Amino acid sequence: MFTTFRGGQSGAWRITLNSAVKGQGLAAVPALAITQSESIALPILPSATSWRLAGVASYVRYVEKAEKLQLVERQAPLGRKEASFAAMIPIKKSAAWWALNQDERREILEAKSHHISGSLKYLPQIARQLYHCRDLGEPFDFITWFEYAPEHATEFEELVAMLRATEEWTFVEREVDVRLRLVE
Amino acid sequence: MFTTFRGGQSGAWRITLNSAVKGQGLAAVPALAITQSESIALPILPSATSWRLAGVASYVRYVEKAEKLQLVERQAPLGRKEASFAAMIPIKKSAAWWALNQDERREILEAKSHHISGSLKYLPQIARQLYHCRDLGEPFDFITWFEYAPEHATEFEELVAMLRATEEWTFVEREVDVRLRLVE
Repeated sequence: MFTTFRGGQSGAWRITLNSAVKGQGLAAVPALAITQSESIALPILPSATSWRLAGVASYVRYVEKAEKLQLVERQAPLGRKEASFAAMIPIKKSAAWWALNQDERREILEAKSHHISGSLKYLPQIARQLYHCRDLGEPFDFITWFEYAPEHATEFEELVAMLRATEEWTFVEREVDVRLRLVE
Repeated sequence: MFTTFRGGQSGAWRITLNSAVKGQGLAAVPALAITQSESIALPILPSATSWRLAGVASYVRYVEKAEKLQLVERQAPLGRKEASFAAMIPIKKSAAWWALNQDERREILEAKSHHISGSLKYLPQIARQLYHCRDLGEPFDFITWFEYAPEHATEFEELVAMLRATEEWTFVEREVDVRLRLVE
């Protein structure tokens, strides 16, 4: 099941900020539409007025059993009525990251960067879903998606700042930060 | 970069055996053609006289640094002149496998099944490449590809038998074994 994020003129989410954090950004468009499909959508031609990113909610690559139990106990699902704020942050990591072996990537991600354990304190306020896109030939490796209620916006900024300050993030070579509000 | 395996009437490899080991097989065709492309080929319609599988030679999911050093030291590349025999073994693992966490899958794959260490003794005689396809929405999760000289056919049968006897293989719910010879 592929999830497609289409930036353009219409969609359930209104784009309130579209910021190129590192590397090339995404064209400024007013809205985002998210769709699910069984087959991957063909890339649309580059356009000044739209873009399309696709990913797969795949199996976990780093999470271990004890961590999963904590995550399952705490995490909230997407689509909560009160979660009218969202962030879509597509990222691409460097060739050096992908050349690392599994134990080396896990060490940087969790032992040094506390990506999993450090994020736990923001659950269940911030609901999250990771979409994998590297193997699909997409421009980004991941699309990270977050949903939260307006009163948790400060915690969300803390979470993003925490992740960006990690050793793991030194391997991020392209990142765009798109903030959204659910259209009433 | 996608690698497409097209079974049909023509191709550099002649199919000498096409055996459904577990679950549904692949249509009997005389030849296999392998192509590389930057974008994923559209699935062809189901046909009695052809099939198409695609995968990505992706980053390692389980190999650790010490293992990688041993692999790099021993492994042979694809395309050796003497390696005129090949095997393409697409496999699909069960939902139970994919629901496991990273440490649980690694334990079954290596600590219990010795997938990495047990395969080392067959290098460099047997050259190997793993293609990932699960995230592409393909019918199989992996396409495993092996190349070897005719005089190493016995060692290859040993390697396949060893892997099929592991705990890891109890999670395989579909497997096809296609053997090939390079057309002179």
